[in-house]
Amino acid sequence: VAYIPTLPDALALMVGIFHEYAGKDGNACSLNKGEFKDLIDAQFPQVFQNSKDKEGIQKLMNDLDRDKSGEIDFTEYMTFLASLAVVCNEYLLESLKGGKKPCK
Amino acid sequence: VAYIPTLPDALALMVGIFHEYAGKDGNACSLNKGEFKDLIDAQFPQVFQNSKDKEGIQKLMNDLDRDKSGEIDFTEYMTFLASLAVVCNEYLLESLKGGKKPCK
Repeated sequence: VAYIPTLPDALALMVGIFHEYAGKDGNACSLNKGEFKDLIDAQFPQVFQNSKDKEGIQKLMNDLDRDKSGEIDFTEYMTFLASLAVVCNEYLLESLKGGKKPCK
Repeated sequence: VAYIPTLPDALALMVGIFHEYAGKDGNACSLNKGEFKDLIDAQFPQVFQNSKDKEGIQKLMNDLDRDKSGEIDFTEYMTFLASLAVVCNEYLLESLKGGKKPCK
C-alpha cells in the first residue's frame, strides 16, 4: 500500500522549501529578491512564466511584502501560498460547473 | 530517482483533503462540525489529541469561523493551515537555537 500524504506532510514541505531558499544567503529567515525568484522559478515553472520579467517579480514581491521589509518572511510566504490555494480551489470549482454542482 | 514533491503538490493535497471531508454531507464547499472533527482526527491525530473533547473542537471551530457562518469555508481552512505552518516554523527555529543560529 502506497503511503498517502497528509496535511502535516504538506506543512512540512512548505516549511522545508522556504528554508531551502531562505538559507541561501543573507537573512536565513526571509527570502530576498534573488531567493524568491529562484523559489518561484523552481517551484512554479508553469504558473509564473514571466519570472524572467524583472518588473513582474518585483511587483509580486511588493504585494506580498506586507511589512515593507524588502524581503518575504515566513508569514508572508504562507499568506502567498494560502492565496494560491484559494485560487486553485476556485479554479477547480469553476471547472466542475455545468456538471454536478459542487456547492449549494 | 524518487519524485521530489513541490509546492503545487502541497497545494493540491490541501485542496483535495478539504473536499474529501467537505463533500461528506450538507454544503460541499464548507466543513460542518462533524466534517471538521473527522478531518482533525484523521489528519492531526497526534497534534489535537483532545478532539474527543467536544468543547475543545467547538472552540477551535469558533476561532476559525471568521464570518460566523457556523462552518469552515476554504479560506478559513487555509488560514488555519497557514497558522499551523507558522507554529511549525517557529518550533523548528526554536529547536535549532543553541546550535547555529538560523536567523540574523
